[in-house]
Parts: sequence; C-alpha cells; structure tokens
Amino acid sequence: MENSRPLDALNKARNKRILIELKNGRQFVGTLVAFDIHINTVLDDAEERVDGEVKRQMGTVFIRGDAITIMSPQ
Amino acid sequence: MENSRPLDALNKARNKRILIELKNGRQFVGTLVAFDIHINTVLDDAEERVDGEVKRQMGTVFIRGDAITIMSPQ
Amino acid sequence: MENSRPLDALNKARNKRILIELKNGRQFVGTLVAFDIHINTVLDDAEERVDGEVKRQMGTVFIRGDAITIMSPQ
Amino acid sequence: MENSRPLDALNKARNKRILIELKNGRQFVGTLVAFDIHINTVLDDAEERVDGEVKRQMGTVFIRGDAITIMSPQ
Amino acid sequence: MENSRPLDALNKARNKRILIELKNGRQFVGTLVAFDIHINTVLDDAEERVDGEVKRQMGTVFIRGDAITIMSPQ
Amino acid sequence: MENSRPLDALNKARNKRILIELKNGRQFVGTLVAFDIHINTVLDDAEERVDGEVKRQMGTVFIRGDAITIMSPQ
Amino acid sequence: MENSRPLDALNKARNKRILIELKNGRQFVGTLVAFDIHINTVLDDAEERVDGEVKRQMGTVFIRGDAITIMSPQ
Repeated sequence: MENSRPLDALNKARNKRILIELKNGRQFVGTLVAFDIHINTVLDDAEERVDGEVKRQMGTVFIRGDAITIMSPQ
Repeated sequence: MENSRPLDALNKARNKRILIELKNGRQFVGTLVAFDIHINTVLDDAEERVDGEVKRQMGTVFIRGDAITIMSPQ
Repeated sequence: MENSRPLDALNKARNKRILIELKNGRQFVGTLVAFDIHINTVLDDAEERVDGEVKRQMGTVFIRGDAITIMSPQ
Repeated sequence: MENSRPLDALNKARNKRILIELKNGRQFVGTLVAFDIHINTVLDDAEERVDGEVKRQMGTVFIRGDAITIMSPQ
Repeated sequence: MENSRPLDALNKARNKRILIELKNGRQFVGTLVAFDIHINTVLDDAEERVDGEVKRQMGTVFIRGDAITIMSPQ
Repeated sequence: MENSRPLDALNKARNKRILIELKNGRQFVGTLVAFDIHINTVLDDAEERVDGEVKRQMGTVFIRGDAITIMSPQ
Repeated sequence: MENSRPLDALNKARNKRILIELKNGRQFVGTLVAFDIHINTVLDDAEERVDGEVKRQMGTVFIRGDAITIMSPQ
C-alpha cells in the first residue's frame, strides 16, 4: 500500500468547496484556489460563518497558514 | 535494543482509528490516512467529539500539525 | 489546469484596496503596496476599522506577517 | 568533567515510566518508547492524570514536542 | 511597474518618527534608528503611549521583532 | 574587553543550584546537569516551588527550552 | 549616512544598566553582560521590579530571547 501525504488531500479538494477553521475560532467556507507548504491558502467566493449562518460574503480570501487549525472539503 | 522513532508509532496507526486533540481543546476521531514530519495529518470518516459525544460528522479533515497536542490510536 | 499559488492572489491585489485582519482581532483597510514571503505587508492610505467604522486614519502601515490571519481584496 | 546533553537524560528514561506535562496544563504518565530532537514523544500504557488521579487510560499516546513543558522520570 | 518590498517602507522611515504597536497592546513612538529582517527595531527618543497620552519617556528602546504587530510613520 | 556569550553564564552554573521560571508561571529549582542551544535543560534533585514553598520533589526534570523565560543561579 | 543595525544599540549598552520587559509583563533591571542573535540575554546584579519597586534581588539572570519584548538602557 502506497503512503499518501497530507497535501494530497488538499490537492484533491482544489476547485471544490472547503471549510477552514482558524485558531481564533473563526470559520470560512469557499472554493479552494491555491495553497502552499506553509498551508497559506486562497479561497474564492468565500463567506465567513458563525454557528452555521453566513456572517459576511468576502469574495477572495487569503488565509495565512499558521492561523489555520483544520480544513475539511464540503 | 533498537531505538524506535516517534513517527513509527503513527505509521503503525495508518488506516486505523485515531483520536487527535488540539491546542484549542477540540477532539477529532477518524481513520489516519496521512501525516508528514510537521505532523500535518489527514483523517477520513472523521467526527468531532465533545465530552465523548459526536458533535459533527466531517468526512475528510486536514489538521495543521502545529495545532495538535496529542494523538492516540483507538 | 495550472495550479496557482497563494501569493498570486496577493500579486493581483497590488495597488488595490485590501482588508487585513490580525490575530488580535484588529482590522486595517488600505492600498496594498508591498508584501514578502513572510506576508510582511505594507498598506498606503490605511485606516483602522472597528465594527465597520473608521477608527483612525494611519497613512502608511507596515504589518508584520505573523500578526496576520486573513487578507481580502475589497 | 564531561558535559552531558539534555537528550541523554531522556535516553536513560527509555522503557521506564515518565511524567509529561503540557503547556495546556495536562499531565500524562506512561512508558517512554520514543522521542526525537523536536521532543515529539511516544508513551505506551499511558494514562492522563488530573490532581494525581487517573482520568483516562489511553494506551499509546504520541505527543507533539512543542506542546510539552517538562518531562520527569518516575 | 516595479514591485516594492515591505522593508523599503521602513527604510524610507529611517530617522523619522514612527509608531510601533506590540502584540501585548502597547504603543511606542520614537525615531527609527535601526531594524533588521526579523524586524528587531531600535527607536531613539522613544516614549510609551497609552490612549494617546505619553506614559513614560524611555530614551533608546530595542524592540524584539516578533513582539511587533504594526509600524506606522508619523 | 572580550565579549561573553549568554550560554557562558549557564556553563558556569553547571552542577550548581539554579532557579528556572516557565512561561506558564511555574518555578523549578534544581542542580543544572545539561542544556543545549535551544535551552532544553535538565535538572537533578529538582523541586517545584510555589510562592517560595516546595510544592513537590521531582528528582530529574527535563524542561523544553521554549517553555522557559528566565534562569538564575542560586 | 551609514545604516546601523539593531544589535549595535545593545552592544553600546554592554556593562551598563538596562531595563528588560517580558511578554508576560515582568520587568528586570541589571547590568548587560551578554546577548546573542536570538536576544538570549544575561544580566548581572539583576533585580525584578513591579510598578517601579524592587520585588527581588536576583544576582545573575539568563533571559531566553523569545520571552523579551523590549530592552532600554537606563
């Protein structure tokens, strides 16, 4: 069995909707456009959510990798 | 006696259920799919738990390594 | 399909208005003048905002990259 | 007198019971199986303790090095 | 159009008054004497301010770069 | 005058009692056995102190360098 | 005009009294004996101060660089 690498999972999620949660507790959902080895990430058509509700529409959002805890394809 | 390395323990847990706890106190349980030297980790069939109860089903979850405190095969 | 990199999104935002949010919860909006791989960033004609209101006009602002959580072109 | 290095003390504790305390205040006791230069550590037969009482039995636990404050052989 | 780098903005502010804000919320204003790539910075004729009022006169102040959030020429 | 280096002060304290204070406010006193460039440190005959009182006797203690704020020979 | 570097200011303060403030809000004043590029620092004849009052006399104090926010020659 071939071992997969963590960034493979993010590569599969490119151009798909993904949930990102930050260390400060904030949640963003958007289309995954780009990421790098630091997990710096860009979402398009992004929205911030609070308790499952859309708080604001944000268009393109660049997220600094070290602010992120988890990412989960939707 | 041959000295083992910490990542050996994670390698043995591949494709098995594992508990991951984060610095912000959150708990995830899922099937360990991938990890790297930064401990960036991917779980499949993941769920978030609060006080032992399932809070949400999450499918695939990428966890940034520096957010993690402990991991324990279930 | 060619994979884009996160800093491409910031390059496209050069000389345009951008919102930057910090780990301590503060918000700045200004014209993106410069950034580097650490995400150290310089804004011109910057203002700090609180709850959507301008709190202070700041002219040029240098922001240390590791203080930043997100950036979003306006 | 020959100067010893900090990891020598951990090497002497291999296969022995050791107490590990984390930055978030949690305590684990287990058999030291492995560690690396980042102080990523693996315990076997681990238990979490609160105020000296066993809170949960955990089997194998991988602890990310940067979450650790102190380790003390028991 | 030639892309500028973030430290160019700090170079232009050498020998001028600059405001520096720290992660712990403190504010210093002084003459920018020196900085390096870590953003370690030295101010002369520095004062600490609280709510716009001078709290203490400090002469020369060395500020460790990783304590800084923003810098803004006055 | 020859410039000394910070680790020289720790070298002089080898095999002597030293006080170590951590970022989380805890205090340990013990015999300095070993340290490295990360300031990972090992104490023997260590005790944890609270408000100057011995809270617990700990034998050997390994302290991860990045948890430390200050060290002071006793 | 020749550009100075931040550590030049610390070099000038060698063997003089200097105030050091830490991220956890504590203040130390002592004679600057040594520092390195991480800003690991050693003070002699050091004292901890709280609200301008001497809280304790400490002799030699090694301060881990990443615990420091500012240093100011007295």
